[in-house]
Amino acid sequence: MSVLILKREEIKKVIDMREVIEEVRKVYKLKSQGKTVIWPLVNYEFEEEHAAMDIRSGYVKGEQLHGLKMLNNFPENREKGLAPFNGIMMVYDSNTGVPIGIMDASYITCMRTGAAGAIGVDSLARKDAETLMLLGAGKQAPFQIAATLLLRPNIKEVYIVDPLSFEQAETLASNMRKILQEDFDIQADQTVFLAERSIEKAVRCSDAIITVTPSRNPLIKKEWIRPGTHFSCLGSDMETKQEIESAIFAGAKIYADDKEQCIRVGEMELPLLEGVIREADILGEIGDLLCGKISGRENSDETTIFDATGLYILDLAAAKAAIAKAKKVHMGIEVEM
Amino acid sequence: MSVLILKREEIKKVIDMREVIEEVRKVYKLKSQGKTVIWPLVNYEFEEEHAAMDIRSGYVKGEQLHGLKMLNNFPENREKGLAPFNGIMMVYDSNTGVPIGIMDASYITCMRTGAAGAIGVDSLARKDAETLMLLGAGKQAPFQIAATLLLRPNIKEVYIVDPLSFEQAETLASNMRKILQEDFDIQADQTVFLAERSIEKAVRCSDAIITVTPSRNPLIKKEWIRPGTHFSCLGSDMETKQEIESAIFAGAKIYADDKEQCIRVGEMELPLLEGVIREADILGEIGDLLCGKISGRENSDETTIFDATGLYILDLAAAKAAIAKAKKVHMGIEVEM
Repeated sequence: MSVLILKREEIKKVIDMREVIEEVRKVYKLKSQGKTVIWPLVNYEFEEEHAAMDIRSGYVKGEQLHGLKMLNNFPENREKGLAPFNGIMMVYDSNTGVPIGIMDASYITCMRTGAAGAIGVDSLARKDAETLMLLGAGKQAPFQIAATLLLRPNIKEVYIVDPLSFEQAETLASNMRKILQEDFDIQADQTVFLAERSIEKAVRCSDAIITVTPSRNPLIKKEWIRPGTHFSCLGSDMETKQEIESAIFAGAKIYADDKEQCIRVGEMELPLLEGVIREADILGEIGDLLCGKISGRENSDETTIFDATGLYILDLAAAKAAIAKAKKVHMGIEVEM
Repeated sequence: MSVLILKREEIKKVIDMREVIEEVRKVYKLKSQGKTVIWPLVNYEFEEEHAAMDIRSGYVKGEQLHGLKMLNNFPENREKGLAPFNGIMMVYDSNTGVPIGIMDASYITCMRTGAAGAIGVDSLARKDAETLMLLGAGKQAPFQIAATLLLRPNIKEVYIVDPLSFEQAETLASNMRKILQEDFDIQADQTVFLAERSIEKAVRCSDAIITVTPSRNPLIKKEWIRPGTHFSCLGSDMETKQEIESAIFAGAKIYADDKEQCIRVGEMELPLLEGVIREADILGEIGDLLCGKISGRENSDETTIFDATGLYILDLAAAKAAIAKAKKVHMGIEVEM
């Protein structure tokens, strides 16, 4: 059997955020239609090494794709001059079980996470939203901004705030136009990118807020938010992580990428545990919204929250797009196994 | 990161059964010492495709290796002119989480399974055993014979019986010496290989019996066996599979590769369910025996049974040997991921 091997740099060259957004949207809908299966997570902590690994896998029935990714997180590698993190994914054709690609997982994960946050903004933020705030100026931020601007080109201002490093926010703000052009083929001449020191100030100016920090303490207070603000919360994907105050959930319209997973490890975990909201307050999954099974925003004053914990089935669909394009342009190497 | 990719043919060239036996023995011992972890199995049946996949993974703490293999079994591929089965494994250095190899899993699985069956024979069969019987002349048979002859060169006769195809048994018997020479670098001039039609007749002549069929009905009856016969049962790895009559377990010394797994899906599953034996009748795991924690054969009349359902941690150790050798002889391709 012949398998296409793609490295990070090759994936970066062939993958297109426009396609990834469409693929992610399609998979969310297929999930709502019961045409996806998320297989059980396998994870392990290496105590002595202070490290962790996990294996995420699943099946997109509607697209006849299945596979896995294995992630290794060894923070102490930094001291050894090695990358602290690596991910490899394997993608299979579910009609035949034949492997179609083995590739670096990290760029694909960034792309589909960007698409997820942006789909939340596009589906739930006010139609007249003109200001976006990014909380967290790390490696996820440019992907979120790129995908959101593709879906909402009317956004005029993007506030970039980083709770740990204003410098990082500044660097990202000043490079953002170039990154959008070079990495995403997006012209953003109508949009300004502003680094901001004060979370409060940025929140008070924003119609849509995307959170992508690993925070364990809420950084955004309810009293700061405007009526009609939308949140796409992507940072919380483990127990006890929290980026926005639990009180923001009270009265808000709440959507999950995967309800069960969000309840367990998402941004909604603590508001539920604290009793600020009950499970019945979760309107449903984003796929249900995209399929028209549940309602979205109904007026300009509601707060909407999309809690996205990440789904491997999104990686599969994004990888499929990358593989198809790579084959077309003869990128990567085909290996006989 | 740079990962070595090895295909089946390359693995076949570099891997040595002698080393695999030592690695498998070592891993069994490490398991007994609590230095291995078998992570939860992920499996799925594709109903429409009448197919199945599973992901096996684990960690050999003693060797600082972890990884996974993904197996796809799509029997209907035969009609499409495609291989019905494929397996790919990924091997990581557990000190750093860095991937060290991605390779075809099938040859490695055959090698470690051969080593497992042979270690059972070597640890438990009578020291003066001279006749070996293989029940099943499929792809596993040569690996079992090769490994057993390495550990027990005094075996003079090998009976090969296949319940479904005498022709296959005949072909294997007549080619066996050549296969041993070419694939395993073993001279077996003192051993004769005999295809036999009658299971009963072969059983009545044999001191050690290795079963490697996918049978769901017992093929060997208790009344046929000699005093002091050893069984290495490798075919049963799923519920309801059974190769030898339950009654053979009564009074026998019983060992497992992994006790919990053997109880659930091994050759001992049905004897336990039928009440022929109780869980307390299982003496322990083969690793406990190899570590000297439990006793083995104590006289020439006992029946001994090694129930081996297969462990991914064995693949890891065998793969490590293959990777080390491949690097030495510059085989395979190094891919930057």
